[in-house]
Amino acid sequence: MKKLHFSLKYRVCKTLDLAETNDPLSKAFDIFLLGLIFLNIVAVALETVDSLYENYRYFFEAFEGFSVLFFTVEYILRIWSCTVKLHYRHPIWGRVRYIITPLALIDLLAILPFFLPLLSPQLRIGRSLRLLRLFRVLKLNRYTDSLRILGRVLRLKQEELLLSLFVLAVLLAVASTMIYFAEHDAQPEAFSSIPEAMWWGTITLTTVGYGDVYPVTLLGRILGAILAILGIGLFALPAGILASGFSEELQARKAKKKTQPQICPHCGEIINPKE
Amino acid sequence: MKKLHFSLKYRVCKTLDLAETNDPLSKAFDIFLLGLIFLNIVAVALETVDSLYENYRYFFEAFEGFSVLFFTVEYILRIWSCTVKLHYRHPIWGRVRYIITPLALIDLLAILPFFLPLLSPQLRIGRSLRLLRLFRVLKLNRYTDSLRILGRVLRLKQEELLLSLFVLAVLLAVASTMIYFAEHDAQPEAFSSIPEAMWWGTITLTTVGYGDVYPVTLLGRILGAILAILGIGLFALPAGILASGFSEELQARKAKKKTQPQICPHCGEIINPKE
Amino acid sequence: MKKLHFSLKYRVCKTLDLAETNDPLSKAFDIFLLGLIFLNIVAVALETVDSLYENYRYFFEAFEGFSVLFFTVEYILRIWSCTVKLHYRHPIWGRVRYIITPLALIDLLAILPFFLPLLSPQLRIGRSLRLLRLFRVLKLNRYTDSLRILGRVLRLKQEELLLSLFVLAVLLAVASTMIYFAEHDAQPEAFSSIPEAMWWGTITLTTVGYGDVYPVTLLGRILGAILAILGIGLFALPAGILASGFSEELQARKAKKKTQPQICPHCGEIINPKE
Amino acid sequence: MKKLHFSLKYRVCKTLDLAETNDPLSKAFDIFLLGLIFLNIVAVALETVDSLYENYRYFFEAFEGFSVLFFTVEYILRIWSCTVKLHYRHPIWGRVRYIITPLALIDLLAILPFFLPLLSPQLRIGRSLRLLRLFRVLKLNRYTDSLRILGRVLRLKQEELLLSLFVLAVLLAVASTMIYFAEHDAQPEAFSSIPEAMWWGTITLTTVGYGDVYPVTLLGRILGAILAILGIGLFALPAGILASGFSEELQARKAKKKTQPQICPHCGEIINPKE
Repeated sequence: MKKLHFSLKYRVCKTLDLAETNDPLSKAFDIFLLGLIFLNIVAVALETVDSLYENYRYFFEAFEGFSVLFFTVEYILRIWSCTVKLHYRHPIWGRVRYIITPLALIDLLAILPFFLPLLSPQLRIGRSLRLLRLFRVLKLNRYTDSLRILGRVLRLKQEELLLSLFVLAVLLAVASTMIYFAEHDAQPEAFSSIPEAMWWGTITLTTVGYGDVYPVTLLGRILGAILAILGIGLFALPAGILASGFSEELQARKAKKKTQPQICPHCGEIINPKE
Repeated sequence: MKKLHFSLKYRVCKTLDLAETNDPLSKAFDIFLLGLIFLNIVAVALETVDSLYENYRYFFEAFEGFSVLFFTVEYILRIWSCTVKLHYRHPIWGRVRYIITPLALIDLLAILPFFLPLLSPQLRIGRSLRLLRLFRVLKLNRYTDSLRILGRVLRLKQEELLLSLFVLAVLLAVASTMIYFAEHDAQPEAFSSIPEAMWWGTITLTTVGYGDVYPVTLLGRILGAILAILGIGLFALPAGILASGFSEELQARKAKKKTQPQICPHCGEIINPKE
Repeated sequence: MKKLHFSLKYRVCKTLDLAETNDPLSKAFDIFLLGLIFLNIVAVALETVDSLYENYRYFFEAFEGFSVLFFTVEYILRIWSCTVKLHYRHPIWGRVRYIITPLALIDLLAILPFFLPLLSPQLRIGRSLRLLRLFRVLKLNRYTDSLRILGRVLRLKQEELLLSLFVLAVLLAVASTMIYFAEHDAQPEAFSSIPEAMWWGTITLTTVGYGDVYPVTLLGRILGAILAILGIGLFALPAGILASGFSEELQARKAKKKTQPQICPHCGEIINPKE
Repeated sequence: MKKLHFSLKYRVCKTLDLAETNDPLSKAFDIFLLGLIFLNIVAVALETVDSLYENYRYFFEAFEGFSVLFFTVEYILRIWSCTVKLHYRHPIWGRVRYIITPLALIDLLAILPFFLPLLSPQLRIGRSLRLLRLFRVLKLNRYTDSLRILGRVLRLKQEELLLSLFVLAVLLAVASTMIYFAEHDAQPEAFSSIPEAMWWGTITLTTVGYGDVYPVTLLGRILGAILAILGIGLFALPAGILASGFSEELQARKAKKKTQPQICPHCGEIINPKE
């Protein structure tokens, strides 16, 4: 009986987890969940289109209800079945340890915006709360290493990135003060203060150049031209640092493929232990 | 007689194909065809200039008629003569196999917009159909490896590109939702919904910055500045990945020059077979 | 007595200098000074926001008074205690040598804008002088190698940078003259002279593209398109040069960790001299 | 006598040529000529500023007269003295050979705009001709290898650059046709024809983004977003190719320092001949 229970739990855990090469049920579940997350993000975006929301309100609400139900069941099953994993073996502390992992917290965050108003009616602040559902995008994290790789690259190149950000910040502060001097009298609206001038500075340094504010005096234009030229040179730094960090990280990942200790699906004993 | 027929077919096939170093007739044909394709693309563009089309209508139509006639004859000759090639030797299945190759399908696509209205008069939807002639640009594919190299680079760097596109998509979704929050009340027109905000997000992330929509609130500007700075760093990733992929591919191409089995131009037997 | 005096001076000097690993007092001082510099820069920026300055005028003035007092005491203590360092040992010439070091000059520059109006009342030109306090950002130099690294990279890649700046300048001069020819008649306001056209040229070459001036004639648009395409190719040069220079410099720094001769904190004799 | 004449000619030639390390007269001449060329370019630009030209007309004309006189004397002296060089030794054919070198043609081009109206009064088309003086910037070529290095880089990376330009051209043609379809009805003014749409396409692909034309329909915006994203990836190609070409070329230059055969300054015989 105990073995049967373990076997079922093991099956559930494997199905919920990222599919291995030869597990069609788990693969189908993965694809379904990925699709559901994607549709949820699309729904969050489309709900803000008034004409769509008014006409298809019931559809949006039904889809939201189904999604929350599904994600809640998934969350409960994950907590129930996590004990088959070596690291979360203990029925109580193992589950507590699992609940506070980043991936499990994201799963909780994905259903929380629906249950919060039920707990306290004052929290029902309408559509704004619904936008929090966007955090469901983080559930994608389980299926991709993208954000984890990005995080590791940021840590790896921390020193260089901080250094170039510092140079950029000093350049921005100096340039904004100078342009404020040069343009304040000619355009008291657009360059009304140094923090306002920093908006212009950032948009010029990044070469976005909306054109909502731009210098008109001779001195301001010379400053703007110098800033634009410097900006390209200096903004290439973080870009280049990130790019080289990514390629280093991706190459390092291809090199190492660790083997981890596993649990037998039939008896729950440790297979392949670290000797 | 059979040999003469084969010899003629071989001559036609060689003339239509990309010229080898010492074949002046084939080279002249290549240059003529390249010029004709180029003029066709120019004609498609110029026809949309009303003043030109009204004054030179007959010239445009005559040129279109000549082009279609030429491309049709070329297409028929290619199908007739393809059997001299080892791969398409069989008179029926060889030709069927040839017709479904990408290059032959492009040749068909280049003349189809002209013949479609003849088959069914309802399809004559005027100038719009004419624009489909732009697909003739794909005929250039025969004379350049550009698109094939691009395709191989995309396959080679598939993993990295998907990874960085995913990070970008998540960043865009999160940034657009946040800016919608920040700017919706101040600019209900420009940031009327999240999909609308995504237009702003894309144009800012790519540093194009048309200036048709831009944040005006303090929170929106801070978000915009962060997005612009992140955008430069993250958009450098696919650019860098593509650039390194291209240089790897071009170096690999210089290294390998494969020899392929050929057919004798006189008797149709295989010369230089794989042993 | 002399030893006690030296010991106190040594303690002051060590506290003012960048903290070593096991000196909590010096570390606390560093953090306090860094915070004060940062707040000063923020104050300079916020003072230009009229609504804030009018309401919190006394707060801004009190903060400025405190900052100047603190920086002045710091400056005097640094000059007094610098003699414990080997290089500035002589009580008079050592201090003069210290005063003319870049870091000490920056410290002087940071307090000068406050004392200048006291020396000569005519110099009290109001808020403008206050903006000079922005130079306090340079005091950060003591805590970071950023600007020194930037300087060394610029020297290292001097030749390549000058070369690409020269190509850019020639391109800008030629393009501005040509666009002046092409657009002067159509837009006599926007392209009133070649120096005016250079503003357009710089903003296009750097891909900022505010949209305040843009070509409208056919010839002007063709020139603008060519310039934009060339600009991307050529502007990538200084960016790439700077990026590779930075990575070279940062790698070189990791390699070398020089040991310098020091003075004993108790007797003032040289420890660890160069043999 | 002959020796004295040769010696003077040799002295003139050496003074006009780029200064060697220990020749103060030649160095002074180089600096004067560089300054004069620079001032000429500034004068061409400033003359188009109406307020300056009206007030300082005589100054501009005097400066132009002096410059032409100086450049003419320099040109005549160069032709007279070029025979001391091994390659242009023959008094007639040597000089003819020298006149048709690129550098000598540029020297001629720099003074021609002044003398042309004297030859034929109808050519006096006023200020427009004056702008041709901008070509004097090419005289800088003698003092820098920039443009020659650029030329060699373009030749070295010819294949890759053409390939990426072809991909860009196809992308631009396809995108402009599609945006014309999508936006023509909504904005018949801005997207009146495909060539008009190409202006939008180029400004978007290069991420300049003036904001004079931008898509407003849903389909147009989706196309615009895709084009902007693709543009960054593909435009990075030529930039990366050029950057790597430059660094290769600059490294190759540092490696080789060729020694060339010279002529004795006293007797005119060849020193250090190729054996």
